[in-house]
Amino acid sequence: MKALVFNGPGQKALEDKPEPQLEKPSDAIVRITKTTICGTDLHILKGDVPEVKPGTTLGHEGVGVVEAVGEGVSNFKVGDAVLISCISSCGKCEYCRRQMYSHCTTGGWILGHLIDGTQAEKVRIPHADTSLYHLPKGADEEALVMLSDILPTGFECGVLNGKVKPGQSVAIVGAGPVGLAALMTAQFYAPGRIVMVDLDDNRLEVAKRFGATDVVNSKSGDAVERVMALTNGRGVDVAIEAVGIPATFSICESIIGAGGTIANVGVHGTKVDLHLEKLWAHNITLTTGLVDTYTTPMLLATVESKRLEPGKLVTHRFTLDQIMDAYATFGEAARTQALKVIISA
Amino acid sequence: MKALVFNGPGQKALEDKPEPQLEKPSDAIVRITKTTICGTDLHILKGDVPEVKPGTTLGHEGVGVVEAVGEGVSNFKVGDAVLISCISSCGKCEYCRRQMYSHCTTGGWILGHLIDGTQAEKVRIPHADTSLYHLPKGADEEALVMLSDILPTGFECGVLNGKVKPGQSVAIVGAGPVGLAALMTAQFYAPGRIVMVDLDDNRLEVAKRFGATDVVNSKSGDAVERVMALTNGRGVDVAIEAVGIPATFSICESIIGAGGTIANVGVHGTKVDLHLEKLWAHNITLTTGLVDTYTTPMLLATVESKRLEPGKLVTHRFTLDQIMDAYATFGEAARTQALKVIISA
Repeated sequence: MKALVFNGPGQKALEDKPEPQLEKPSDAIVRITKTTICGTDLHILKGDVPEVKPGTTLGHEGVGVVEAVGEGVSNFKVGDAVLISCISSCGKCEYCRRQMYSHCTTGGWILGHLIDGTQAEKVRIPHADTSLYHLPKGADEEALVMLSDILPTGFECGVLNGKVKPGQSVAIVGAGPVGLAALMTAQFYAPGRIVMVDLDDNRLEVAKRFGATDVVNSKSGDAVERVMALTNGRGVDVAIEAVGIPATFSICESIIGAGGTIANVGVHGTKVDLHLEKLWAHNITLTTGLVDTYTTPMLLATVESKRLEPGKLVTHRFTLDQIMDAYATFGEAARTQALKVIISA
Repeated sequence: MKALVFNGPGQKALEDKPEPQLEKPSDAIVRITKTTICGTDLHILKGDVPEVKPGTTLGHEGVGVVEAVGEGVSNFKVGDAVLISCISSCGKCEYCRRQMYSHCTTGGWILGHLIDGTQAEKVRIPHADTSLYHLPKGADEEALVMLSDILPTGFECGVLNGKVKPGQSVAIVGAGPVGLAALMTAQFYAPGRIVMVDLDDNRLEVAKRFGATDVVNSKSGDAVERVMALTNGRGVDVAIEAVGIPATFSICESIIGAGGTIANVGVHGTKVDLHLEKLWAHNITLTTGLVDTYTTPMLLATVESKRLEPGKLVTHRFTLDQIMDAYATFGEAARTQALKVIISA
C-alpha cells in the first residue's frame, strides 16, 4: 500500500509499504478514506521530535472503514465507518481511569509518532474499542477528520482548561487551525468577547467570520496595549496560548486579568519566562495539557446538532497520490492561506 | 501611643504616635491585644516593597478589642473581641463579590503597607464589617493571631488552590510558618503522603511533629530525586511552593506528576524559568494568589472544634516594648528556631 514515510529530518516520501496486520487482540485495521496534515507533522519533519524513527508513516488524524478487528474488539466490526482519535487509550490504566488518555501507559499519542500513522491507505489502531468512534450516519467525513485532533485540542486544552464562562472576555493568541478550533468551541459557553491575536491578516479575517468579536494583529508590537484597552485595562478572564513560542506566551502573561486563567495549548520547544514577581499576587491559574480526547463524543454530538461546523476549516483537497503537494501547500500556509488540507485515500 | 514604625529600608523604631481616629463611617478602631511579625515585614525592611512610605506603622496581623466604630458599622460594637484580617475588603466591589478580597479596589493588603498597621497599641480598620471577625468565647488569642494571615494563606493559596484530595501525594517546599500552615490544613483532606522539603533540619523536625509523613533536606541537592523515589517515579499530585525563589519553584516543576497542580504561595521578587518544553504535555495546573481570607470563618470553626491548633506555631513571646527584640529573634530564625513570635500590647 502507499504511505507517506518519514525518512529522517527534512526527508519524506510517498512509498510502497506492506499493509498493517493485526498484532494484538485489541487491534483493528482501518482503511483510511480521509486524512489530513497537522502542524506536528511539520515539527517531526524539522527534526523537533527525535523519538520518531525513520521509516515511520506519519499522520494521527483520519476517518475510515474497519477492515479487520482482533478477537478482543467488541465495539466495532468489519465495515463500520469510524473516526480515529489522535490519542490511543487502553481504557484500563491508572491514567485512562482518570480520563487522562494522553498519558495512557500503553497508548497516548503513538500514531505517526511511535507507530505507523494515518497518512496511508491503511492503519493499525491499537486499543480499538477505546480509540475509535462510530461516525454518525450521513456524516460529512471531511468535517469529522477535524475531530481527530484539532477540535478536541482547542476545546479541552483551551476552552475547558480555561474554564470559559458566559459573559467573560477571552483572548486566543494564535489563529492557526487549533486556535480557530478554540474560537469555535469557546462559543458554546457564550463569552462576552473573544479577541483573536495573530500576525496574519488573512487568518484574522477568517477568525472574524468564525465569531471573533475583535482581532488584533500583533505585528505592530502593541498587541498587549490593544487587548488591555478592549478590557478597560483589566485584562482578559481567559487567555488561550495557541502558538507555542515565548513571545506568544509572554502576551498571555501580560493580558491576563486578576483571577484569570492562561490555558496553554501550544507545543513549546523551549522554556519561557514566568513573571512570578508580578503574577504571584494576581490570583491566576495556568494550565498545560496534551489533548486527552475525552470530549470526542461531546464534539460528535455538537457536529450532529450543527452547533459546530468544523468543515469550515478545510481549505484544500488532495488525493493520497498528491500528498507531497498537500505538504507543500500546508507548509506554506501564509502564502497559500491553507488552514486544514484534506487528503482522500 | 506606641507603634513600630518603618523609617525607610533597614530602619525601624518603636515610636510615640498619635492614636488613630475614625475617618470613614465604615471604620473601626481596635485596641491591639496580640500581634505578630510576618516574613513580609522583613521584606519591607529590606526595601523590597517600595510602596511602603517611611512613617508607616508595620503589621497586618492581630487580635484586639473594638474601641470605636463608625456610623456605618453594624456587625461590631465597642468592646467586641475581634480577629483582624490581613486583607481589608469592602464587600461591594467587583472583586469582593467574586470573593477575591485581596483585589478589593479600596482594600486588599493595606494594613502595615499603605496605611498604618497592627504593631501598635491601636489600629484603624477600614471596612470593619467585612474585615474583622468575632473571636469565639474563651478563645486562645495567641492561636487566633495565626488566622490573620498565615493560616488562610497556607490553606487558600496552597491547599485549596492545590486541590488536595484524599490519598494524594503532596509536597510542600518550604517549612516556614506559611509552609507549616499548609501542612496543618492539608490534613483536613486526608492526603496519603505529605513530603516537607526545606534546608533547615529543625524546621523539618517540627514538620514531622505537625504531621509530615516524609521530610527531605534540600541542602544535599538531590531533593528532586528523593521526592521522585517516594512517589515511585511518578511525581506528586500537589506541589506547594512556600518560599518564593527560583530554586524552590524549580523543585516544584521537577517533582510535579502528570495531571498535578503546583500551588504557588511564595512571594517572588524575580521571574522564574517555566519549562513548558516539558510541561506543555504534562497536564499540569499552576496557581498563584495573594490570600483572599475567604476561609477565615471556616478556619475559626476548625480551631473551635480543635481540628486545627495554630497555637503550635508560636515559639517566642514579647511585649510591645520588646518588639525590637522580637524582630531580632524572628529575623534570625535559623539560629533562634523561631516560627511565630507573639507580641502582647
